Amino acid sequence: MKDTVTLNDWVQSVLDEVESALQAWVPMDAPAGLGEAMRYGVLDGGKRLRPLLVLAACEAVGGARAAALRAAVAVELIHAYSLVHDDLPCMDNDVLRRGKPTVHVRYGEAQAMLAGDAMQALAFEVLTPQDGSVEPALQARLCALLARAAGHAGMAGGQAIDLASVGRPLDEAALRDMHRRKTGALLQVSVLMGAACGDAAPAALAALADYGAALGLAFQVVDDILDVTQESHTLGKTAGKDLHDNKPTYVSVLGLDAARRHAAELRDQAQAALARSGLANTARLAALADKVVDRDS
Amino acid sequence: MKDTVTLNDWVQSVLDEVESALQAWVPMDAPAGLGEAMRYGVLDGGKRLRPLLVLAACEAVGGARAAALRAAVAVELIHAYSLVHDDLPCMDNDVLRRGKPTVHVRYGEAQAMLAGDAMQALAFEVLTPQDGSVEPALQARLCALLARAAGHAGMAGGQAIDLASVGRPLDEAALRDMHRRKTGALLQVSVLMGAACGDAAPAALAALADYGAALGLAFQVVDDILDVTQESHTLGKTAGKDLHDNKPTYVSVLGLDAARRHAAELRDQAQAALARSGLANTARLAALADKVVDRDS
Repeated sequence: MKDTVTLNDWVQSVLDEVESALQAWVPMDAPAGLGEAMRYGVLDGGKRLRPLLVLAACEAVGGARAAALRAAVAVELIHAYSLVHDDLPCMDNDVLRRGKPTVHVRYGEAQAMLAGDAMQALAFEVLTPQDGSVEPALQARLCALLARAAGHAGMAGGQAIDLASVGRPLDEAALRDMHRRKTGALLQVSVLMGAACGDAAPAALAALADYGAALGLAFQVVDDILDVTQESHTLGKTAGKDLHDNKPTYVSVLGLDAARRHAAELRDQAQAALARSGLANTARLAALADKVVDRDS
Repeated sequence: MKDTVTLNDWVQSVLDEVESALQAWVPMDAPAGLGEAMRYGVLDGGKRLRPLLVLAACEAVGGARAAALRAAVAVELIHAYSLVHDDLPCMDNDVLRRGKPTVHVRYGEAQAMLAGDAMQALAFEVLTPQDGSVEPALQARLCALLARAAGHAGMAGGQAIDLASVGRPLDEAALRDMHRRKTGALLQVSVLMGAACGDAAPAALAALADYGAALGLAFQVVDDILDVTQESHTLGKTAGKDLHDNKPTYVSVLGLDAARRHAAELRDQAQAALARSGLANTARLAALADKVVDRDS
């Protein structure tokens, strides 16, 4: 009970810090309504799981917090831009996100596309401050990690597989490959970016990478379970969407019970990786893995 | 005559080098056709003006060529992604680009949007090689420059103004502000990225920034002139498009003759800035400014 309260306090303090940073760094004054659309797409919503992972990983390695906060905001900007683009009519054509009309419903398709584009650029702007607050070599490392996770080999590649898989049966291996890229890459890189802010040994970094991979997949398995077991108002997005769109999911491929068992296995793998890391301060990361699997929205 | 031949030889050698680098760095193996769409959007076409500016500026300051080649490819990827997104139905809805069907005509809207997104990420991937070929501090500097030029304060912001300006009268100052961002920011940053690969004095950098600003605006003025004076088959894109779309242009705001005089003035400003830079090796940059103003496509 004590631990839960402590985690919740820590989560709330991180959420406040990330929200303040987003408020400060996502521009109000970008021209012709672009800033407003960007802010609508990223402020006041979301679980901020990726920022939480960045900052928890940074704590685990005793890393530089100013750099980790920038990494947290950058990865959330990439995540948010991907949702803005994903919701467009030519992609998932979704009208509800985080309990609000999606960006293109509110601002039009063209502005939504531009806002997403500008959010991706802003992520790299946030990672490269010109005020001396982050070592240039660390800036370069964080840009390298994020670009690779967001791009063709990571998130964008996973979305392309997703596009191509509508209405086609995928086996579990193909489904895993898709999600490893589409959602897993960004969740894993959140952990790696946080870890890059400190000086962890290679073995510890490898264990954190395993943790991030297991957690990333667990997140998607649970997402697929919630899509069929929860209502839209609980999720803040349209429930049953994957089923309706005839997209393969862990539930459609494995069945609901096996999907639940798989989520539990992945949680165990994530916790085992933390134990293997040899790092002392992994309680937050452990709690986040539990949170990912036990959540109801 | 000698100089022209020399410039043309240099241009051809740079084009070959940039094309080879794009061939090598834009993936063939990205999943589900994404790599094919990315390659279609950036290979075998375009004037490559931005890469030429990067490498000419690098030569002017005696900079590191390996870094400049990466900067050249990165800025071309940003330019190419912006065209892919700009051509989409929700934006300019254009079907012809570089004499070929646009990416969304060929691969569908969703894949075109993803390809653009992945090309932006790839730009930052190209700037952050993990092989020791570019100093980490220079990697960070190049990412910082490119992210700011591509984002809300630069290219994406200019596109938002462009969207909002359809059918509305703009005065010359507003038109200049739009183009300074929409096309100018990326052209200017090409010069600045090339210069960042060397150790130019602040005064020389400021002069190169002025050169880049004047050249960037000249490019757009000439584009607007060509839009009304050339045929589609010469341009490789739909001629008369801006007029048809009721977009303000330098020709609609100033008239054709005054637009031509303005282009000549901007060329003079660019050349004066080079003279002011105090750099010895600016012949390529000078020739590129002439090429921008004297081109017929």
